[in-house]
Amino acid sequence: MTETAPNVGIVMGSDSDWPFMREAAEVLEEFGLAYEADVVSAHRMPQEMLAYGSQAADRGVQVLIAGAGGAAHLPGMLASVTPLPVIGVPVPLRHLDGMDSLLSIVQMPAGVPVATVAVGASRNAGLLAVRMLAASDEELRAKMTEFQERLKEHAHAKGERLRR
Amino acid sequence: MTETAPNVGIVMGSDSDWPFMREAAEVLEEFGLAYEADVVSAHRMPQEMLAYGSQAADRGVQVLIAGAGGAAHLPGMLASVTPLPVIGVPVPLRHLDGMDSLLSIVQMPAGVPVATVAVGASRNAGLLAVRMLAASDEELRAKMTEFQERLKEHAHAKGERLRR
Amino acid sequence: MTETAPNVGIVMGSDSDWPFMREAAEVLEEFGLAYEADVVSAHRMPQEMLAYGSQAADRGVQVLIAGAGGAAHLPGMLASVTPLPVIGVPVPLRHLDGMDSLLSIVQMPAGVPVATVAVGASRNAGLLAVRMLAASDEELRAKMTEFQERLKEHAHAKGERLRR
Amino acid sequence: MTETAPNVGIVMGSDSDWPFMREAAEVLEEFGLAYEADVVSAHRMPQEMLAYGSQAADRGVQVLIAGAGGAAHLPGMLASVTPLPVIGVPVPLRHLDGMDSLLSIVQMPAGVPVATVAVGASRNAGLLAVRMLAASDEELRAKMTEFQERLKEHAHAKGERLRR
Amino acid sequence: MTETAPNVGIVMGSDSDWPFMREAAEVLEEFGLAYEADVVSAHRMPQEMLAYGSQAADRGVQVLIAGAGGAAHLPGMLASVTPLPVIGVPVPLRHLDGMDSLLSIVQMPAGVPVATVAVGASRNAGLLAVRMLAASDEELRAKMTEFQERLKEHAHAKGERLRR
Amino acid sequence: MTETAPNVGIVMGSDSDWPFMREAAEVLEEFGLAYEADVVSAHRMPQEMLAYGSQAADRGVQVLIAGAGGAAHLPGMLASVTPLPVIGVPVPLRHLDGMDSLLSIVQMPAGVPVATVAVGASRNAGLLAVRMLAASDEELRAKMTEFQERLKEHAHAKGERLRR
Amino acid sequence: MTETAPNVGIVMGSDSDWPFMREAAEVLEEFGLAYEADVVSAHRMPQEMLAYGSQAADRGVQVLIAGAGGAAHLPGMLASVTPLPVIGVPVPLRHLDGMDSLLSIVQMPAGVPVATVAVGASRNAGLLAVRMLAASDEELRAKMTEFQERLKEHAHAKGERLRR
Amino acid sequence: MTETAPNVGIVMGSDSDWPFMREAAEVLEEFGLAYEADVVSAHRMPQEMLAYGSQAADRGVQVLIAGAGGAAHLPGMLASVTPLPVIGVPVPLRHLDGMDSLLSIVQMPAGVPVATVAVGASRNAGLLAVRMLAASDEELRAKMTEFQERLKEHAHAKGERLRR
Repeated sequence: MTETAPNVGIVMGSDSDWPFMREAAEVLEEFGLAYEADVVSAHRMPQEMLAYGSQAADRGVQVLIAGAGGAAHLPGMLASVTPLPVIGVPVPLRHLDGMDSLLSIVQMPAGVPVATVAVGASRNAGLLAVRMLAASDEELRAKMTEFQERLKEHAHAKGERLRR
Repeated sequence: MTETAPNVGIVMGSDSDWPFMREAAEVLEEFGLAYEADVVSAHRMPQEMLAYGSQAADRGVQVLIAGAGGAAHLPGMLASVTPLPVIGVPVPLRHLDGMDSLLSIVQMPAGVPVATVAVGASRNAGLLAVRMLAASDEELRAKMTEFQERLKEHAHAKGERLRR
Repeated sequence: MTETAPNVGIVMGSDSDWPFMREAAEVLEEFGLAYEADVVSAHRMPQEMLAYGSQAADRGVQVLIAGAGGAAHLPGMLASVTPLPVIGVPVPLRHLDGMDSLLSIVQMPAGVPVATVAVGASRNAGLLAVRMLAASDEELRAKMTEFQERLKEHAHAKGERLRR
Repeated sequence: MTETAPNVGIVMGSDSDWPFMREAAEVLEEFGLAYEADVVSAHRMPQEMLAYGSQAADRGVQVLIAGAGGAAHLPGMLASVTPLPVIGVPVPLRHLDGMDSLLSIVQMPAGVPVATVAVGASRNAGLLAVRMLAASDEELRAKMTEFQERLKEHAHAKGERLRR
Repeated sequence: MTETAPNVGIVMGSDSDWPFMREAAEVLEEFGLAYEADVVSAHRMPQEMLAYGSQAADRGVQVLIAGAGGAAHLPGMLASVTPLPVIGVPVPLRHLDGMDSLLSIVQMPAGVPVATVAVGASRNAGLLAVRMLAASDEELRAKMTEFQERLKEHAHAKGERLRR
Repeated sequence: MTETAPNVGIVMGSDSDWPFMREAAEVLEEFGLAYEADVVSAHRMPQEMLAYGSQAADRGVQVLIAGAGGAAHLPGMLASVTPLPVIGVPVPLRHLDGMDSLLSIVQMPAGVPVATVAVGASRNAGLLAVRMLAASDEELRAKMTEFQERLKEHAHAKGERLRR
Repeated sequence: MTETAPNVGIVMGSDSDWPFMREAAEVLEEFGLAYEADVVSAHRMPQEMLAYGSQAADRGVQVLIAGAGGAAHLPGMLASVTPLPVIGVPVPLRHLDGMDSLLSIVQMPAGVPVATVAVGASRNAGLLAVRMLAASDEELRAKMTEFQERLKEHAHAKGERLRR
Repeated sequence: MTETAPNVGIVMGSDSDWPFMREAAEVLEEFGLAYEADVVSAHRMPQEMLAYGSQAADRGVQVLIAGAGGAAHLPGMLASVTPLPVIGVPVPLRHLDGMDSLLSIVQMPAGVPVATVAVGASRNAGLLAVRMLAASDEELRAKMTEFQERLKEHAHAKGERLRR
């Protein structure tokens, strides 16, 4: 594991998903974490997808984030070849409003969990990755606590505006 | 392709699914088609699963039938590595009544279709495999036509019993 | 069966569905397969619909693709009168987002399967027809393998663009 | 139209549905209406099914009741070949709790309506047939009014028992 | 019952529903049937709603059509006070796509059926009313048969355009 | 309003619902509130149902609780004729698991709200009635606070058992 | 409890919800009831949220209205710390059409009810608050009765416009 | 943080959930991780629940697992007061098959993610906690890799039994 290995791998089935998945990357940057982003399609390049997943831990990646829609197999397949925690983001497609994506990602069989976040919640996927890494990193945990403090302050400010 | 290569590969995630998937095998036997049955778990043995899928056509298998439940990735992952038609059977698990299995199997992305049958319809999966093979086999098609004739006769007999 | 009989029949309930179902036709052309397209409405011309279905095999058609929405009866009714494999495409209508179309097509009773693809997936219906025909046609299967290779290359190119 | 032609045709896909559909027959008997019951399977005997539907009106039948489950095509297909009102009863199968049956029956396209009742409501199908016939039959309408009066009295009696 | 009593009463909860429910009226006019249209709100004028329903039969109305959305009580409440057949049209509101309207209308308890049509299917509600009246009116039934013949011809013409 | 007028009216469509709705009554008794229970069927005795609803406030009743299943019209219809708050309890029937009951009760149109509780939650309906009355009754509010204190103590005791 | 304490507290997770929740406030003003509006986020300021809820009754607030979307925890958490009735408004978010919000609010466990209104029904939440307060306030109840009378008159006027 | 602080806190709303949540504990034991189990009810002891959540990190706990059903607020509320990763297990209750629990847990707002696993998947919650801790612990990651190896071997053995 080199010093420069990214902490988090963000993968998706197509580069057209990047504007959507970028929110995960941005939140990692806010917390000073390194990431890599790649197109890893479960259905169009399955062997490379498995290779990506099975090598990620040895390359020093600590958490994987995978966005997928419809019969969203990417998060679950990655989880089957890596010991790393995999965060799945259900991407809503044109029909069914992401319900198919959600069920395809979250309903994993015993033995191979995927940490699923809300439909379309790529920013929360990034925050969940931060929390996972912060579980063993007091400095990062302090940053998360500060982040939560700022969430609270913003909510307070909104309340003040409303009460005025 | 050897003479003895089975026409259809029937795969599932666990041998406990066999009592359920056996109905597909039985219907193939009724039509005189050879099959092989195997445990090929997308989540517990992903590399072997891909190997099974990518070698099936070269071994002479013509159609794959895959039963899966929940985040049912097996049919779709096989379809991504084989040029053969893959039939997916949504297996109903303890919760959600197979709706998760159905959506995870049928909602495949452009480029990689899975031929999905009804929730729990392993027998129909076998019959669909027969129809696929019969598309290029007049003798087999004649058998399917006879089979449909018998379905009709049974329905007639039921009507007679009811009208009596 | 004449040499010139189309391999695939693509049918739909109205010519207004053609812009949608055309994607199935286009993919067949890419694979050098002949098709015919027709309006065959289960509810507005039921006898002709059954006639179309029951004669298709004798005319040399090998696979049927049927698009239908709402109480989508066309694929299932065709499947009841032909020994050919029938591919059903759930067409999303103004309400319920195609969930009614999907369930009406996929939940067929024992004895009469329909090979169902994703909501709105007419292109995948064409690809599934190719796979069915390729099950007994090595040349066509090689083309499908090449097609899958190109899918992979496109996905790779997308990954490169993203990593840059 | 002969005097003895039954008013209502009750059809279903299998004689095993009779214990369920019998409730429709019983309510017709209570109202002194004649009925016939038959097995008419949309998927196993499609031509006979269409023949049944297209001849029903000429035989003097006035209303059709059809029970069906899953991809429940029977009511809609009958409606496409008869000018008579067709009442559809969604039969709940082992999975999906009748939601597939309901949507497959009720979501008919413009031009061909099916009068749909609740999941499993075969008795209400019979009562709806009575109301349809009573629309042009004052005597029958008076019976329906009496029936509704008795429903009210039973409800009153239940209230008294509870208040005691 | 006077000669001039309308055959069908079309009711809805607000005059803003009229552009939507008008399709039912138009189809009745095509068949030469008289109708009346009124605002009868189950929740804003419940007593008048019940009065409307309980007097309809005595005024000579033969069928009621009621459009309603959300917790759509109008069709069911009318059915509880009239012996006439009541046709319910589930109106889709801003949320839930008409699924709430559909279930609220169709899932009536034993004793009081509502003839439910598809979400938003006001035209089919009119056609169902015609079929109900045609059950005892050979002339009207002949018109319905002609109407179905025209549906078929239109479908044929569409097929010709497509095949060209 | 007499001293002896019950605070809460608990109504349901059949006395067979009493074992289920009794939980609402029991909780009222725990809080020393008077109730009356009655069978008031929206569909079998609509006029009496409206009479019950429109007289309840004048008789001194302060809150209505109504349990209903399927096309559950009772709570909404009562709310349309009374200025009192109406609490609706979605009763799960044999099919659809109470989802139809929930949507039929909660999705009321603007102007006529129903206070809806969880599927099958008759006990919570009673507790909600207590809270409504406690809004203007400090003594009752104190009892509710004590009740909540006891809920907490029970939860604590459970925690202790688990930690042992 | 001071004379000037507002009767109703209207809370929401962000000031951006105010245009939506304002409808609840407006209806309270129509009935001459005082309210306060505040941003109280369950997830961004949980301690303050609990503080708000647990102090509301002592400050003289009589009813709480809480709007929330997605995993909508605000109404239920407030209900767990106050003896006051809490009205929950399911706010529809970009995906799932408010179904997640509805289930998260209404499906409360035994002991802690939330009075749930329709998806997006902030105006009805205000009207429900009025009814709750009117349960112990004859003057307010008279106003509600008048309000319902006006609803009826408006509906009548609509009917007249339609019948013209 | 003391040496003996448990790595994982497993919490639930009632000790009756323990037989269900114990599967999470067992898997932690298999991996040699320490855990604590407690009853922490969001709705019955909200202040203690928040106290538990906000102190967990300082006590040295690294991951929280929370099981909850219906309007399942526990995981989300804990996530709002801790910087630790929170794993939510949707518990299926008597109605709605866990769909309410799933949506209430997974659909968290931006800023506060919950790592959601499948309906009823308490064992997978334990495995996900292991993966999270293994992200920064090579030894633990090696154990997870071994665990996945054993999953594969078991699947192989099942295949052999089936092929025999």
